[in-house]
Amino acid sequence: MKYAAGIDVGGTTVKLGLFDDTGRLLEKWEIPTRTEEGGRNVLPDTAASLRGHLAERNASTADLLGAGIGVPGAVMQDGTVNRCVNLGWGVFSLTGKLSALLDGVKVSAGNDANVAALGEQWKGGGQGRHNIVMVTLGTGVGGGIVINDRILTGAFGAAGEIGHIQMRDDEPETCGCGKHGCLEQYASARGIARVAGKYLADHPEKKSALRTADHISARVVFNAAKKGDATAREIVEIVCEYLGKGLASVAEVVDPEIFVIGGGVSKAGPILTDTIKKYYVRYVFHASRGTAFALARLGNDAGIYGAARMVLSRF
Amino acid sequence: MKYAAGIDVGGTTVKLGLFDDTGRLLEKWEIPTRTEEGGRNVLPDTAASLRGHLAERNASTADLLGAGIGVPGAVMQDGTVNRCVNLGWGVFSLTGKLSALLDGVKVSAGNDANVAALGEQWKGGGQGRHNIVMVTLGTGVGGGIVINDRILTGAFGAAGEIGHIQMRDDEPETCGCGKHGCLEQYASARGIARVAGKYLADHPEKKSALRTADHISARVVFNAAKKGDATAREIVEIVCEYLGKGLASVAEVVDPEIFVIGGGVSKAGPILTDTIKKYYVRYVFHASRGTAFALARLGNDAGIYGAARMVLSRF
Repeated sequence: MKYAAGIDVGGTTVKLGLFDDTGRLLEKWEIPTRTEEGGRNVLPDTAASLRGHLAERNASTADLLGAGIGVPGAVMQDGTVNRCVNLGWGVFSLTGKLSALLDGVKVSAGNDANVAALGEQWKGGGQGRHNIVMVTLGTGVGGGIVINDRILTGAFGAAGEIGHIQMRDDEPETCGCGKHGCLEQYASARGIARVAGKYLADHPEKKSALRTADHISARVVFNAAKKGDATAREIVEIVCEYLGKGLASVAEVVDPEIFVIGGGVSKAGPILTDTIKKYYVRYVFHASRGTAFALARLGNDAGIYGAARMVLSRF
Repeated sequence: MKYAAGIDVGGTTVKLGLFDDTGRLLEKWEIPTRTEEGGRNVLPDTAASLRGHLAERNASTADLLGAGIGVPGAVMQDGTVNRCVNLGWGVFSLTGKLSALLDGVKVSAGNDANVAALGEQWKGGGQGRHNIVMVTLGTGVGGGIVINDRILTGAFGAAGEIGHIQMRDDEPETCGCGKHGCLEQYASARGIARVAGKYLADHPEKKSALRTADHISARVVFNAAKKGDATAREIVEIVCEYLGKGLASVAEVVDPEIFVIGGGVSKAGPILTDTIKKYYVRYVFHASRGTAFALARLGNDAGIYGAARMVLSRF
């Protein structure tokens, strides 16, 4: 039996999956990400763990069709990684280094958001579609674009950085990227909490269960809205209007078949996709009003699926 | 000798080009576009004209490798055209109909802005690049995207409709598309004249040669700016800030190697690309600050080049 390895490197853990050559997930596990010393141990730890799990199956790297890897940073089309701040990595050949650690198996590499998008396109919320945009609403707002079943990388590895589309010119606070008014500042988990706090402060007359919450998070806001809290609902509308308008701009560029919404915030469920779509239709060019919206389905496994897909789509 | 035909259908004329199989343009000509009767004569006229020019070379449709055609409307990936308002066309198989008129030669079809982008990528301002966005600043603001040497069509044939990215929420005037605040309302030839008129009216204290011009057009504004008219220069800055910000959003999505700027407004020259780039760098995500900007080089021939390229890239 031949295997494909799918690897998803995060700032805290490295997720690994072994797939058979038909794309079935046989086994998945995690190891800690050792970010100390410039993250020099991350790839050797990963390779050693993978070898161990292969050995348990009486297999070795010779039984690998290849390994796919997603990392939190820009990866060029030639497999060069261009800094992963969270891992302490600089610029080097990610595919070359991991391949050398795995006895020369063929390695494919990509940015983690892009690789997760490929996973969702293959086996998740975008299954059956060839052109998708995945939107990850988590700590930040990430994006991944799949065109004709392939990841769109971009000239500088920055395709799909849709969290940094400019939404407002009058934003006084600074985004993590240094700009002002990025989509991420309104629609990430943190952005939603910030929008909520500001809305409550600006409208002292409005009653809301949010005023007595210990802590206002995106989850608390969406839960209150689902329970009928009118003020929370207004905040959801504001956030989803930013998202609908931002995704309309994305559709003006790539016109995807579907937007797949993932990340922690997407646990809110259909209230999120339905409300985004309501505003999307209002802002998008008429030809693209029929774009589908779906929730992501693979959760934290999207990365290992997409990484394995990069291997298996070569065959 | 084998030929490729490149056809570019406009609302006034149909441009045709005969290319050899190495991509050299041998001959180009135009015929009027007969839009009456729902544009039913456009394709038969085109096919008859092409046959005539082939006959002059003692050739026939049997000597065609294929024909490529660009039309002013959405064209799906299967060759179905989805309404061309300017031609009076509804929904039908463009590739099927033209192929039948040309004795079954293989036909490739696309939206005119997309096909022109492919032409500029092949032999024009984007030569040598694989991923480009072409921006056409004419009556409207059009866009065409080439990814890995191929046109990006989009799920609804609307990829590259970047003129309809939402730039302002407070725009009282309506765009041709029915929305308010589209990029096209500020950066098309007409949009630039509108911005100029508004700026002069809002700043009665500012002196400018534009105040004594017979007629304010984009060309008049850029020419005055180049001659040192400070007010005209301010208008150029405003227009290019809209463009720089809009193209930054485009780069957040597809991250191209280069933006190629064409259309009538691009006759302004480097003042246009330089000023757009100045604002682009300010608004774009840091990874993409190095994107190149160039002027289009093929002028009105971009469409026939791109159409021929669709034929020749199959070989």
